[in-house]
Amino acid sequence: MASLPNGAAAAPSSSAAGGRPVDKEVDFANYFCTYAYLYHQKEMLCDRVRMDAYHSAVFRNPHHFRGKVVLDVGTGSGILAIWSAQAGARKVYAVEATNVAEHARELVRANGVADIVEVIQGTMEDIVLPEKGESTLDVIISEWMGYYLLRESMFDSVICARDRWLNPGGVMYPSHARMWLAPIRSGLGDKKMEDFEIAMNDWNLFVEDTDAYYGVNMNALTKAYRAEHEKFYLKSSIWNNLHPNQLIGQPAVIKEIDCLTATVDEIREVRAQVMLPINQERTRLAALAGWFDVHFRGSNQNPAVQEVELSTAPDENGGTHWGQQVFLLTPSLRVNEGDNVKVSFSMVRSKENHRLMDMDFTYELHESSGKKLPAVTTKIYLE
Amino acid sequence: MASLPNGAAAAPSSSAAGGRPVDKEVDFANYFCTYAYLYHQKEMLCDRVRMDAYHSAVFRNPHHFRGKVVLDVGTGSGILAIWSAQAGARKVYAVEATNVAEHARELVRANGVADIVEVIQGTMEDIVLPEKGESTLDVIISEWMGYYLLRESMFDSVICARDRWLNPGGVMYPSHARMWLAPIRSGLGDKKMEDFEIAMNDWNLFVEDTDAYYGVNMNALTKAYRAEHEKFYLKSSIWNNLHPNQLIGQPAVIKEIDCLTATVDEIREVRAQVMLPINQERTRLAALAGWFDVHFRGSNQNPAVQEVELSTAPDENGGTHWGQQVFLLTPSLRVNEGDNVKVSFSMVRSKENHRLMDMDFTYELHESSGKKLPAVTTKIYLE
Repeated sequence: MASLPNGAAAAPSSSAAGGRPVDKEVDFANYFCTYAYLYHQKEMLCDRVRMDAYHSAVFRNPHHFRGKVVLDVGTGSGILAIWSAQAGARKVYAVEATNVAEHARELVRANGVADIVEVIQGTMEDIVLPEKGESTLDVIISEWMGYYLLRESMFDSVICARDRWLNPGGVMYPSHARMWLAPIRSGLGDKKMEDFEIAMNDWNLFVEDTDAYYGVNMNALTKAYRAEHEKFYLKSSIWNNLHPNQLIGQPAVIKEIDCLTATVDEIREVRAQVMLPINQERTRLAALAGWFDVHFRGSNQNPAVQEVELSTAPDENGGTHWGQQVFLLTPSLRVNEGDNVKVSFSMVRSKENHRLMDMDFTYELHESSGKKLPAVTTKIYLE
Repeated sequence: MASLPNGAAAAPSSSAAGGRPVDKEVDFANYFCTYAYLYHQKEMLCDRVRMDAYHSAVFRNPHHFRGKVVLDVGTGSGILAIWSAQAGARKVYAVEATNVAEHARELVRANGVADIVEVIQGTMEDIVLPEKGESTLDVIISEWMGYYLLRESMFDSVICARDRWLNPGGVMYPSHARMWLAPIRSGLGDKKMEDFEIAMNDWNLFVEDTDAYYGVNMNALTKAYRAEHEKFYLKSSIWNNLHPNQLIGQPAVIKEIDCLTATVDEIREVRAQVMLPINQERTRLAALAGWFDVHFRGSNQNPAVQEVELSTAPDENGGTHWGQQVFLLTPSLRVNEGDNVKVSFSMVRSKENHRLMDMDFTYELHESSGKKLPAVTTKIYLE
């Protein structure tokens, strides 16, 4: 068969459905394995915005760490665990599902904190912390954020750890998270539409050729081929590092999460309705953009001395490895200053893979003249 | 976390070990799912060398199909099953594990052979053929070949079908297969070595920066990072469509398979020792190249009227989607006409994923002067 070049691997495939229990081995094949490569660890460790935010959060708030017991969920190379130890933690549990755990152990030793940091290989849901007694954890630190915050569904594991082991009065690093949505202009929509049309023209030639040379009419699959490619080119969320001048209106927060109290039920489905005011004249609403920020504020009981923010918003000085997600609107809309775009948004986990997201956008232009255009609904897949 | 751009998915990951039984769901996530896309089906259907060979094999040997019962293992879009019906088969079973089975059904209907072709969704190992009685199958047709013939280990499923259901006197399409090995010159080795060195320089800067800015010494991981990248750049088999003038010596057959009698034990490990004569003056042996061919000869009892060959050898008129596999030799060797390269080769299934291959090459230059250079051994991964 050999339809794929070496190394090109599968798109996320059928595994556990949204509600059903997850087959762990399949989940590992689909998800965790990607984090086993040092190459990917380095990509994350080279994201200066990400690194600076966590570094500042820890070292500007040593009172949260000094003499405390800390858990790092998904430690990867171990960096957050090492920082926690350097900031004065009494004990740090660093949990990692993949074989990168071995490397974390080496790094912990080489950086002289092996007496404080204990690396445990396993999934958060399966492992047991050696710590005994009432007050188990003072701090849970984790870099759990996926594209548009919730892709990967890794926050589930943080919640699991929190509910099992965090002290009353314990703090979460980060403590809060927000999802943003904004109207943007972008040439991506035209480019993708062009790619889609090229692909369909190519298909039509293929159908003609296969009939002519091999006596088989492939036209019965044209509809399915179109749907597959429409999804790929037009209905898949697109990674992009936007320039702030691509924003043509006010961004809106569509979801706020308090990491100390959030439940899995609260993030399994996200629904919002927002009115996005356009603030530019004679432009085109080509897409909506989504991004997130997280905050390190400690807790009410035990606040941060210096609050830190990690934002993945469009930034002219360069972005993060998360970038932003672009959700194409087809058709795009001519808009003007003073118009408003009403957006109803829903995001649920994919039935085939609980770490991926299916989104619905209904958008309706309310022109400044008072005229309302008919609402359009589009599905977008965050895969 | 989000270390990966959307759509970029995992490299093949830990699943079933060589000897152990395969976790079917993991195997699906790692392997089958890639074939569920019409995009990939089209890639294979557009490979004219592949299509012409199967088409000729079937339609130039209608005596093998007329009034016969045929099985197509891994039918994909259903093309081989439809051709078998068009060539006069009485009944065709078309077995497909992925949801492409649905599309195969549509195509079968649209091409007017629904009364003959029965599409069955399932794996060859799990399904049961409805056919009853002594003479179950007259022909097994399948396009099971992966990179360097055996990657994907799909021939196992063909063997399974053959041993369960093929009549005495039945024929296999293809009937024979061969693996080839040849000495080549190529700039790929230098390019990959350069990429590897760039990656390592970049790593060294990263180690410096992370120490300076974030107080963590990453040097403990340098060895592991080097090993990961050496494997990626230098020890991974490389897909390439070679020009015949890159061959600098005589290709050799290192394995022949009779599809009517081969056993899984026979293909689980392939070992060979060959002497490759160099036939060019003052050139560099940069790599060995591997490819395969298959033949459609019917059987001794029931031979083809017209034999057909499907070759994936280097071809100046353009190749197949299989291309050839390039196995870099580091160090490369200066060679001359009249020299001989003695190569000991072994290929076994990867412990982590039985559909991938680990190879060992030991190469030893015997110069025409009689001088022998020390043997070098290198591992190559076909992933």
